[in-house]
Amino acid sequence: MDFSRLSEGWEEELIQFRRQRHQHPENAWTEFLTTSEIIKKLEEYEIPYLFGRQVHTKGERYGVPSEEVLQACMERAVSEGADPKLVEQMRGGYTGVVGILDTGKPGPVTAMRFDIDCNDVGECQDSSHFPAREGFASMHPNLMHACGHDVHTAIGIGMARFLSLYRDQLCGTIKLIFQAAEEGARGGESMAASGLLEDVDYLFGGHVADMTSHLGEFAASTINGSISYKVDLIFKGLSAHAGMAPEKGKNALAAAASAILNLLAISRHSGGRTRVNVGACTAGPGRNVIPDYALLKAEVRGLTEELNEYMFQRMLTVSRAAAEMYDCEFSYRIMGHSIDAPCDKEMVDLAYEAAKETEGVTLMNPSHDMLGGGEDVTFMMREVQKHGGKATFMWLGCDSTAPNHNSCFSITEDVIPLTVRLFGTMVMKLNGIL
Amino acid sequence: MDFSRLSEGWEEELIQFRRQRHQHPENAWTEFLTTSEIIKKLEEYEIPYLFGRQVHTKGERYGVPSEEVLQACMERAVSEGADPKLVEQMRGGYTGVVGILDTGKPGPVTAMRFDIDCNDVGECQDSSHFPAREGFASMHPNLMHACGHDVHTAIGIGMARFLSLYRDQLCGTIKLIFQAAEEGARGGESMAASGLLEDVDYLFGGHVADMTSHLGEFAASTINGSISYKVDLIFKGLSAHAGMAPEKGKNALAAAASAILNLLAISRHSGGRTRVNVGACTAGPGRNVIPDYALLKAEVRGLTEELNEYMFQRMLTVSRAAAEMYDCEFSYRIMGHSIDAPCDKEMVDLAYEAAKETEGVTLMNPSHDMLGGGEDVTFMMREVQKHGGKATFMWLGCDSTAPNHNSCFSITEDVIPLTVRLFGTMVMKLNGIL
Amino acid sequence: MDFSRLSEGWEEELIQFRRQRHQHPENAWTEFLTTSEIIKKLEEYEIPYLFGRQVHTKGERYGVPSEEVLQACMERAVSEGADPKLVEQMRGGYTGVVGILDTGKPGPVTAMRFDIDCNDVGECQDSSHFPAREGFASMHPNLMHACGHDVHTAIGIGMARFLSLYRDQLCGTIKLIFQAAEEGARGGESMAASGLLEDVDYLFGGHVADMTSHLGEFAASTINGSISYKVDLIFKGLSAHAGMAPEKGKNALAAAASAILNLLAISRHSGGRTRVNVGACTAGPGRNVIPDYALLKAEVRGLTEELNEYMFQRMLTVSRAAAEMYDCEFSYRIMGHSIDAPCDKEMVDLAYEAAKETEGVTLMNPSHDMLGGGEDVTFMMREVQKHGGKATFMWLGCDSTAPNHNSCFSITEDVIPLTVRLFGTMVMKLNGIL
Amino acid sequence: MDFSRLSEGWEEELIQFRRQRHQHPENAWTEFLTTSEIIKKLEEYEIPYLFGRQVHTKGERYGVPSEEVLQACMERAVSEGADPKLVEQMRGGYTGVVGILDTGKPGPVTAMRFDIDCNDVGECQDSSHFPAREGFASMHPNLMHACGHDVHTAIGIGMARFLSLYRDQLCGTIKLIFQAAEEGARGGESMAASGLLEDVDYLFGGHVADMTSHLGEFAASTINGSISYKVDLIFKGLSAHAGMAPEKGKNALAAAASAILNLLAISRHSGGRTRVNVGACTAGPGRNVIPDYALLKAEVRGLTEELNEYMFQRMLTVSRAAAEMYDCEFSYRIMGHSIDAPCDKEMVDLAYEAAKETEGVTLMNPSHDMLGGGEDVTFMMREVQKHGGKATFMWLGCDSTAPNHNSCFSITEDVIPLTVRLFGTMVMKLNGIL
Repeated sequence: MDFSRLSEGWEEELIQFRRQRHQHPENAWTEFLTTSEIIKKLEEYEIPYLFGRQVHTKGERYGVPSEEVLQACMERAVSEGADPKLVEQMRGGYTGVVGILDTGKPGPVTAMRFDIDCNDVGECQDSSHFPAREGFASMHPNLMHACGHDVHTAIGIGMARFLSLYRDQLCGTIKLIFQAAEEGARGGESMAASGLLEDVDYLFGGHVADMTSHLGEFAASTINGSISYKVDLIFKGLSAHAGMAPEKGKNALAAAASAILNLLAISRHSGGRTRVNVGACTAGPGRNVIPDYALLKAEVRGLTEELNEYMFQRMLTVSRAAAEMYDCEFSYRIMGHSIDAPCDKEMVDLAYEAAKETEGVTLMNPSHDMLGGGEDVTFMMREVQKHGGKATFMWLGCDSTAPNHNSCFSITEDVIPLTVRLFGTMVMKLNGIL
Repeated sequence: MDFSRLSEGWEEELIQFRRQRHQHPENAWTEFLTTSEIIKKLEEYEIPYLFGRQVHTKGERYGVPSEEVLQACMERAVSEGADPKLVEQMRGGYTGVVGILDTGKPGPVTAMRFDIDCNDVGECQDSSHFPAREGFASMHPNLMHACGHDVHTAIGIGMARFLSLYRDQLCGTIKLIFQAAEEGARGGESMAASGLLEDVDYLFGGHVADMTSHLGEFAASTINGSISYKVDLIFKGLSAHAGMAPEKGKNALAAAASAILNLLAISRHSGGRTRVNVGACTAGPGRNVIPDYALLKAEVRGLTEELNEYMFQRMLTVSRAAAEMYDCEFSYRIMGHSIDAPCDKEMVDLAYEAAKETEGVTLMNPSHDMLGGGEDVTFMMREVQKHGGKATFMWLGCDSTAPNHNSCFSITEDVIPLTVRLFGTMVMKLNGIL
Repeated sequence: MDFSRLSEGWEEELIQFRRQRHQHPENAWTEFLTTSEIIKKLEEYEIPYLFGRQVHTKGERYGVPSEEVLQACMERAVSEGADPKLVEQMRGGYTGVVGILDTGKPGPVTAMRFDIDCNDVGECQDSSHFPAREGFASMHPNLMHACGHDVHTAIGIGMARFLSLYRDQLCGTIKLIFQAAEEGARGGESMAASGLLEDVDYLFGGHVADMTSHLGEFAASTINGSISYKVDLIFKGLSAHAGMAPEKGKNALAAAASAILNLLAISRHSGGRTRVNVGACTAGPGRNVIPDYALLKAEVRGLTEELNEYMFQRMLTVSRAAAEMYDCEFSYRIMGHSIDAPCDKEMVDLAYEAAKETEGVTLMNPSHDMLGGGEDVTFMMREVQKHGGKATFMWLGCDSTAPNHNSCFSITEDVIPLTVRLFGTMVMKLNGIL
Repeated sequence: MDFSRLSEGWEEELIQFRRQRHQHPENAWTEFLTTSEIIKKLEEYEIPYLFGRQVHTKGERYGVPSEEVLQACMERAVSEGADPKLVEQMRGGYTGVVGILDTGKPGPVTAMRFDIDCNDVGECQDSSHFPAREGFASMHPNLMHACGHDVHTAIGIGMARFLSLYRDQLCGTIKLIFQAAEEGARGGESMAASGLLEDVDYLFGGHVADMTSHLGEFAASTINGSISYKVDLIFKGLSAHAGMAPEKGKNALAAAASAILNLLAISRHSGGRTRVNVGACTAGPGRNVIPDYALLKAEVRGLTEELNEYMFQRMLTVSRAAAEMYDCEFSYRIMGHSIDAPCDKEMVDLAYEAAKETEGVTLMNPSHDMLGGGEDVTFMMREVQKHGGKATFMWLGCDSTAPNHNSCFSITEDVIPLTVRLFGTMVMKLNGIL
């Protein structure tokens, strides 16, 4: 289709916006500046929006940082130009925003989803690294857009511009969901449960890059994503002097060690692939004290939700019993959760149709194998499908220099305008225009 | 004192009796022939007796063998000459017998204790081994008097003969307790709780041999005996095909393995010496099946009863939680229990006095250190002390050829008549005669 | 084809032979009577044979019982009618026999394989159980043909009769391999390496029953069989008194327990299905002794040989290190080994062709999923394929009353003559007759 | 004796010096300001001194902080008034100083030892806490003199003043050892091995406070101190994605967990009290990554050095094998070591004699039971005893408000002048003056 209304320079503008996001990365639940900048753009394009507590569900938000951390991030955001009033409305880590264009004309409700958070990775500052060489590498220590969500955000802004300029041709309602906290599978469930997806007929979105694809190559759906629980396992005991009265202690680290071994020993399952990992442990105040606490950062995965649930229940049983062994108390916090939501054939067909009419799309695969990698868009997809809607999550091929989450990750920015054109075409088709 | 009434040949008779016991050893709760033979002797010496259920307490008998094993042992006893009627009255493993001589004259109630069971050890059949050379080595496979209880039994028979012949000089009541099932600390508690010790004013007994003493050397008391629980830990799970559906199983061996490691890891105690051991494990039906049961033969020990109790409670907590880890059921059986009962100074003084007047006693030490070795006579001692009585457990020195419980264990039989003379003198003193 | 030459009553004769085998089951490496009876039949049908050490390879025989057990089984076999001279030639557990019919005419070498050992299962003696009701239930305690190898043996005898009677029509050489010790995956590798398969052009065989199929339903190949190592893990330590000097011991059971947990904790593999099980444990002499040995009966499995090898190497690493932890010695014995050998399309096609011409075959499936169940015929298949030969292992459907290895396992005996007809047709086709 | 030469106000001066130390606490190997201030005093009293690398041994210094930490502490010390030139000479954490008064007259070599480092404890800032109320609570976050080493330092300065003023009466050589890094048992071994103690005939020192004693009550020796190794156990593995390729990782945390359980399971020892503790664990980079490192902060203790060595060797064996289990690398760092050095009777007698003549000493006990608490003065004592010298370590009773190492720990400052008088009297007696 013809994208001439977007006017000259729109591609550079999106790339510019992406680079600003890359330079100011914000991790899960702290996307204060990012959200504020998205809102500025939505206002510029005259697209109404909801944000803050309006787009979240109390009680479903996993892994929110402490008050102190949130406060520091809010201050950083303001110091970097975020609107203080907006930031204040996001207090508590209620980040993310949903732009909602109601055309006033009868028609379907179409939604697109873009995630906006960064990774806990320090960015390579070597001149061989494109963002460093071009001067837009991360200014935030140990934070980096190493999974392309800055690019996703820019695509979303491109869609806002598109909707704004083609508004008269469109019908129904179109929602642009800028989702907080995708990393760790934390934000999707909260936004999915907010009610904003209840009336959605069509939902789509996509993810860039994974070293296997190239610019112009897309996939109409994704399969084999992670189904997982991320859980903090907490053991509380009682300290005592290890030399003088060890029996007075309740050894939380011994409980945790017992849990680790027996968690890894959870039986393999005939139903298919399962995984369990304890990726980190922090325990004990000091060498000569019976350790009175231990924190394990753990996760389980399953090929199916049933298998994931099996692993999760076994994890709790084992951990609880390990605590009892040492008279310790056990508690846990779910820090992330991802589910399975298969893509709908209708949407795959749509992607194929749109691809044919989008210049620059050289290949459309039926599906992309995520090899167990996670994406919490599935919560939104399930929400839509529950009400009879159709959804897909696509793969947006582009060249990348390093694996996702690596400090040298960098991708072809041309994927931004190309995806805007593909998504724009899909919207037009859903609106019956093409 | 003068032991001439015992008449010539009494020493050889006792040695003969001992050798018969040695040749026909019976282990805990199966002393059918042994009890039957003791009873014959008591009848010969016209000493009334109680036996069977009369001398035991239902519910306190640890580690009784299965019906089948008991039946086979009863049959063996009868085939070896035991009185079938007596054996029938011991059905259920109610072995042991108490001879009770009521002199009819006012006086104290004095009791002596002799244990009668053998060990689960196969006897050396080499001619270098005295019982083998002399032709009285064990005829029962894997059973052997390797801890001298055959000698103790013979001393008891010697005391019966003594009581019988000096009956006119004695006063009060005198009880000869032939205790079943000392090995594994199983019979003492049951006989102690039978009521037979409630009226006892003085209790004593002794043990032979441990490679550190010599014939003629006695100790008036014992210290530092074992305080212990012997416990079978039982894990029940669910079997499943290890290849096709491992997750359907409940892995009792994994639970047991987890228990083992965490039992050994029970914290040391600032209050003093503790011990824990899992000495044996039997688990699982076969290689390719998730094991549905595991049996651990375990024990704990403590320097004090408080420490022993600490270990026991921790053992149960750990084992129960280990079972829960694998959704298994846990149960336990106490197979033995030994407690602490300090010897009374009055009895020590008595032993010293008697030693002076007993020919052949070359040394009387105040106490013998048992180094944590066990003896369940302590249950009887405590019972006596509870009612204000006095008790001691002595050491009966003699030369031995190998450590107790060793298949080459053999001792100087002269300790039998020598101890009869010492004990006889003690009885006389308690009766105010010497 | 026409099987009239087999003459009337041949079906009953085979069933009779099967029932004799069922009544006298012999487990792996003790098939003395079975082999002797097969030889009698081969002689009756004038088919030459090799047996004893001629059909085995020294050093490849896993899990051979002790001399004592073998001796007892040899005596039992003779007492039940085995030819003492034949039995003597099988001393050492060299059971199994290969009938070899050389037609003297040019033609392919065709081999069929039948396994002959029973399971370590006690047979149901209830009248609801067919063999019990008909009076041919197992006379050997804890041994039972609960996996249908008695039926396989009878089919093999049927094939001997067939070869004998149709000898003039056949060409090339035909081998009937009666394999010892299939259970535990122990005999296949030894017979495969004996050289007897080096000239084989076509190999086939089959297995009956698994609750999912019915009489008349066959499958031309099997897939997804077990690839596995069966391993005994042996830990040797040092005993010591658990109360008096525990530190002097080297705790083999603690080493084994540590091994168990860490074996179960071997990482899952991204390459596909793996399994690990410790199915049985025997350890320690007694409760109050630091246990000086532990034996674990373990197995690993993998979807591919590479995965199986990964598990096996990890098993050894973990076990060896667990022993080192406790200053114990570690050794292991491979008790069984099964590999993967895919069925050849040529043979599948042959089975389809034959099925069309065999009365009573109602269904021929392309393949039967063994769901990870094991069969060591794969060693023979690989040997044949190595030399360019073709092989398949088929499924012989029949109705069964209980899962394989269950004490109530019983199947439709009609599968015997039906399979003889199918296999006969296949032989004819391979000989170019049909 | 007469201490009038010390002149009026000396007690207040010492208390003032102690309070400055309390306000500026420095932990092990960072006592730059403390050492600098001690040197100022030694110069004031005209006592020559050695410090820096002269008083330490390369290679014996456990647990020295990183270059960065040392640099920051040096800068803090200078900013708080330390002499930059002195501080520079201590670069590398070579803190501590030894004052050496050579009287030029023949006589024995006498040494006293005072430790100077603080604890890693944040000080109570409540007005109920004496140092807070009086305005000399710690100005350094998370550092506090909570074990009285500030008081020990002040006593040492008092002894310097005493030596200076009574110099003409003294003979031989007198050394004042201000030891760095006593906490964690790290500095004693290094200074002991420096050669400075090779000629010492008499060594003594003491420790204040433990909630059981009162001002005026001393003990002439200490018994039952800790014998211990403090060890960091380091496991290095390989990270991998826990979902996509877990088998590619080498799980350092699983190795550490296995080590923890099996360390706690190290056998109790019949030789007496042993201890083992893993007091802290830090492992793994993140939840979804196979953890590639784990650090355990561990310690072992024994009643005797032999028992301590037994525990240490077992710890290394277990840890090394746990690493091997998971193909990880194991290394360790000794972070502290304390040994046993019994006090000499000659010195105990001396303390008794001196006590009689020291006003304010109300009680002199023969020994103080340290209940397994540690003191690395033992390295110096052993060094002295090796060369035939005599040594003791005394207890300096005083009232305290809380247990040692507690954030509310505060003691009676009067113990400073009282101990100076007692130690002065001891010196006089060793010099043959009293």
